[in-house]
Amino acid sequence: MAEGSDDIQALIALMGRLPGLGPRSARRIVLHLIRKRQGQMAQLSALLDSVASNSRECLTCGNITDRDDCAICTDPARATGEICVVQDVADLWALERGHAFKGRYHVLGGTLSALDEIGPEDLGIPSLIDRIARDRISEVILALNATVDGQTTAHYIADALEGTGVTVTGLAQGVPIGGELDYLDDGTITAALRARRRL
Amino acid sequence: MAEGSDDIQALIALMGRLPGLGPRSARRIVLHLIRKRQGQMAQLSALLDSVASNSRECLTCGNITDRDDCAICTDPARATGEICVVQDVADLWALERGHAFKGRYHVLGGTLSALDEIGPEDLGIPSLIDRIARDRISEVILALNATVDGQTTAHYIADALEGTGVTVTGLAQGVPIGGELDYLDDGTITAALRARRRL
Repeated sequence: MAEGSDDIQALIALMGRLPGLGPRSARRIVLHLIRKRQGQMAQLSALLDSVASNSRECLTCGNITDRDDCAICTDPARATGEICVVQDVADLWALERGHAFKGRYHVLGGTLSALDEIGPEDLGIPSLIDRIARDRISEVILALNATVDGQTTAHYIADALEGTGVTVTGLAQGVPIGGELDYLDDGTITAALRARRRL
Repeated sequence: MAEGSDDIQALIALMGRLPGLGPRSARRIVLHLIRKRQGQMAQLSALLDSVASNSRECLTCGNITDRDDCAICTDPARATGEICVVQDVADLWALERGHAFKGRYHVLGGTLSALDEIGPEDLGIPSLIDRIARDRISEVILALNATVDGQTTAHYIADALEGTGVTVTGLAQGVPIGGELDYLDDGTITAALRARRRL
């Protein structure tokens, strides 16, 4: 047994299965933690335990929270008339870091996919449509990935909301800030050119 | 608060300070764990807690273990006459994965460094010399990094053992297995040429 004890080996194996980590980086992290076993390692264990027991999905929007309704859904300062639809909680966090959107969210938890047999019911699209009908929503922003599945899902939701009077919008497509044309794919350049605007 | 709860933010911050991780990879790992909070996350917390409370340094060699003396030091099948001196526990693990060495180890926990004021006492070099005198050691293999500090430390130990009758060896230097000459640094090629051997 090379790595100290059975628990250490199990810990390295478990760490090595986390996204972005492998056996080598997991060993490095575990050794680092063992060196700091009174401080960082005990703290990490306690936090993981607390987050594992207290985290749940917000009943309204699907965001990760430690209450029944998340901090965004219960914030009276945020506009109730705008819902931003995202694929994952990671996308919600990314938008929140931008501090640009001041409405509410709706997390789908995935995209429609014929191949993986994921239909509208699996994504909470019916609950989104219910919510829009109930809460007097004026605008739905479909902030979905610019991938085939993301855009298929956006089109499906836009179709489902047709005739309800709700404004449905999507994120602008174009050159990313700081992007160099030379390094961009042809699709992005074409989309940016089509959507050109007057300066 | 973008990321769910205070605990989630603290967990991301703590994870992001681990070697090789940053805020982005930490967020990705934490979200992955929250999705698997009943299984992987609870398991990880329990293992971290167990390793943090049970790990300690082997009293003889400095290896990480969950007992007073490590599995290597107490293994009767391993030669007692050979000590392999390594800088860190990570190096011991790397050698053990090679399955080539069947003796005992001695972990220094660093290298001599005038700049960082690390002297022989800080590295357990006196305890290594005591151990060699006490345990009838025939060979000491200095498996230290091929860096300036590593080689300085190796020379210091070799000098300290002069006249004791112990054979002191070092790892061979040369072309790594699978290495292409074109991509090797000049120092390695020169060392490999100097240490050339008859085929």
